[in-house]
Amino acid sequence: MHIAVLGGDGIGPEVTAQAVKALRAVAANGPQFEMTEAKIGDAAFDAEGDPLPERTAQLAERADAILFGAAGTFDSDLRPPEQRGGHALLRLRKRMDLFANFRPVFAIPELAGASTLRRDVLKNVDLVVLRELTGDIYFGQPRGIHVEGGERVGINTMRYTESEIRRVAHAGFQAARARKKKLCSVDKANVLETMVLWREVVTEVGREYPDVELSHLYVDAAAMLLIRKPADFDVIVTGNIFGDILSDAAAMLTGSLGMLPSASINAEGKGLYEPVHGSAPDIAGRDIANPLASILSAAMMLRQSLGQPEGAARIERAVRRVLAEGYRTADIMEDGAHLLGTEAMGDAVAKEI
Amino acid sequence: MHIAVLGGDGIGPEVTAQAVKALRAVAANGPQFEMTEAKIGDAAFDAEGDPLPERTAQLAERADAILFGAAGTFDSDLRPPEQRGGHALLRLRKRMDLFANFRPVFAIPELAGASTLRRDVLKNVDLVVLRELTGDIYFGQPRGIHVEGGERVGINTMRYTESEIRRVAHAGFQAARARKKKLCSVDKANVLETMVLWREVVTEVGREYPDVELSHLYVDAAAMLLIRKPADFDVIVTGNIFGDILSDAAAMLTGSLGMLPSASINAEGKGLYEPVHGSAPDIAGRDIANPLASILSAAMMLRQSLGQPEGAARIERAVRRVLAEGYRTADIMEDGAHLLGTEAMGDAVAKEI
Ligand SMILES: CC(C)[C@H](C(=O)O)[C@@H](O)C(=O)O
Ligand SMILES: CC(C)[C@H](C(=O)O)[C@@H](O)C(=O)O
Repeated sequence: MHIAVLGGDGIGPEVTAQAVKALRAVAANGPQFEMTEAKIGDAAFDAEGDPLPERTAQLAERADAILFGAAGTFDSDLRPPEQRGGHALLRLRKRMDLFANFRPVFAIPELAGASTLRRDVLKNVDLVVLRELTGDIYFGQPRGIHVEGGERVGINTMRYTESEIRRVAHAGFQAARARKKKLCSVDKANVLETMVLWREVVTEVGREYPDVELSHLYVDAAAMLLIRKPADFDVIVTGNIFGDILSDAAAMLTGSLGMLPSASINAEGKGLYEPVHGSAPDIAGRDIANPLASILSAAMMLRQSLGQPEGAARIERAVRRVLAEGYRTADIMEDGAHLLGTEAMGDAVAKEI
Repeated sequence: MHIAVLGGDGIGPEVTAQAVKALRAVAANGPQFEMTEAKIGDAAFDAEGDPLPERTAQLAERADAILFGAAGTFDSDLRPPEQRGGHALLRLRKRMDLFANFRPVFAIPELAGASTLRRDVLKNVDLVVLRELTGDIYFGQPRGIHVEGGERVGINTMRYTESEIRRVAHAGFQAARARKKKLCSVDKANVLETMVLWREVVTEVGREYPDVELSHLYVDAAAMLLIRKPADFDVIVTGNIFGDILSDAAAMLTGSLGMLPSASINAEGKGLYEPVHGSAPDIAGRDIANPLASILSAAMMLRQSLGQPEGAARIERAVRRVLAEGYRTADIMEDGAHLLGTEAMGDAVAKEI
C-alpha cells in the first residue's frame, strides 16, 4: 500500500510526522506501507513556484491514499489565487474529484471541559458532516470582478448538477445506514433554486434507502440546531459552502478541534485524509501543536481507503488510552493532566500501539 | 407618527398584539402613535391571493415604521415562490431597500440557564450582527433550474456592487462607533471574488473611521469563533447569505431566541422591526408564544426610526423588571419562576411601563 504524505505548511509537517509514526507502529506487526513525501502549499510555492507542483499531484493520484497536513498561511493570502498555498488543496480536490468530505464530530468525555457547551448538551454528540467538495460556488462559472456602470461588481456562481447532488446523496445515505440511520439534508430551498434542485434530488435518492430516515433543514435552522441540540444529529449532508460553515461550527462544539480528523473521498474510494484544523502558522515549529487529529486521520485512512479496519482500531484505542492516562497537549490541557509536546504525544501514541 | 402593523402568520399576530399593547402604554403618557394593521404572508395569500398585497406594501411605504410579526408557514413551502408567505418579506425588503439588518444578541443574566453554552462563556456576550439584506445570492441573476446535457442544473448568482458594500460598511462602522468600536467584517475572500471585493471596499470605507478597529474573518472561522469566544465580538458586518446563517447561530448562543428583536433599515432611516424567531405555526393560537422579542422590536423601532429613545428605554426597563420578578413564558421557563401565557406576559410588561 502506497501512501502519499503531504505535510504542507505551518504545523502540517509536524503533526503529519506523528501520524507517520503511528502508521509505522501499526506496520511493525501488521500491513506494510510505502510512504512517499512531497511538497504542497506555500512550502511548494517557495521551493518550486507552484503550490501544487505537477510531481506532487501525480504522486497523490498514483498513491492508494493521501495523508495531508495543512496548506496555506496568512502570508500567501495576499498573493493571486494560483500562488496561494490554500488553493493547492482546492485544485487537488477538483483534480482528483474528491467530492465527499466526511467530518466526524464526537464528544470525547475526557475533554468535555474544553468545550464551550454545557456538559449535558455535549453528551452523546456523535455526528458526521458530509460536505460536497467539488461543486457549488467554489467552482461555478462565471466568476470574477468587473466594472459595470462605473463601479466594481463581484460575482460568483452557485451551481449544482443533478448527478453531482445524486452521488453525494448516495454517500450520505450509505454513511447513515452504517450509523444511526438518520440523514439530515441541509439546503436553502426557500430562497435558492439550486437548493430546490438539491432537495428534490436528495428526496429522489432517498427512495432507494427506505431504512434511513431523511429530514431537511434550511441552513440557518441547521446552524441553530447544531448549537441547540447537537446530539440530535447523525449524518448531515450539504453543499460545499454551507458545509464549509457548518462543519467548522460543528467542529467547535466539542472544544477539541485539535482532535478531529476528516476524509475527502472520490468515486473510486481514494481519499485525502487531513486534520480539520488548519496550518496555524502562529504555533508552527514550537512542538506544541496537537497531533491527535492527524493521527486519527491516519486511522480513518486505514479504515476507509486501505481496507485495514483493525489497524484503524489499534490507533484509535491507543489515542483513547493516552488520553485516559491524562496526557494532553497545550490546546486541551487541564488541571492535573500531564502536558506533552507534539513529538512526545506522537511517541506516547506509538508506544500504546 | 404612523406605524404599519403587519402581524402576518403563525404566532406573528399574537406576539405583535403584545408589542402594540406596549406601544399604547408608552403613548398613555408620551408620544402618540397611529397604528394601521394590514395582512401579509400566507394570511394575505389566503385572503387576497397575494402574500404581499399592493395595499399592504403601500401602507408599509407610507408609514414611518413597520412593526412586523412573521410571514410564511410550512404549508406554503411547497407552493411556487411568488405564492409563499415568506417571500412577501423578501419582496418588501427589496422594494423598500431595507439593506441594513441589525440583529443584536445579548446574554440576559436571568435567562443564562436557557443557553446551551457554559455560563462563563456567555458572560459579556453583547454583539450585533449587521446583515446586508437586499443583495447577494438572494437576488442575483441569472438563477433557476434548467436542463443541460440531459440533466437538471441549478444555478444562483452571488453578486455585490461596490456601492451596495459601501453603504452597509458605513452602517457597520457607525454602529460600532456607537458601541465598543470594533467591527469584524466576515467574508470568504480566500475563495470568492465577490468577497475579495467585499473585503477591499470595507477596508477602503474603514479609512474614514480611524477610531473603529476593523478586523476580517472568513465565514467558517467566524462560525467557529461565535461558538468559541462570543464575548469577543462587537459588531459583525457580512453579506446576506452568510448573515442569514451567522445571525441565527448567534441568536442561539444566548438560548433566548424568544427575546431577540431585529431591525431592517433603509437609507432614509425607515425600518421594519421584527422578532428574530419565525412564525412557529406549531405553537400558534395557543397563547404560549413569548412576546418579548416583538415587544423589544417595538422598543428598537422607537429608538431607531421614530426618534423616541425615552419610550424605548421605558419598554426595555419594563421587560427587565418583569423578568427580574420571575415571570416567564414557556420557552424560557425555569424552576421556581411564574409561568405566563402570551397575553398575560404582554399585560405584565404594559403594566410595568
Ligand atoms: C482553505 C479553504 C479554501 C478551505 C475551504 O473553504 O474549503 C477550508 O476552509 C476548508 O474547509 O478546507
Ligand atoms: C424566510 C427566509 C427567506 C428568511 C431569509 O433567509 O432571509 C429568514 O431566514 C430570515 O432570516 O429572515
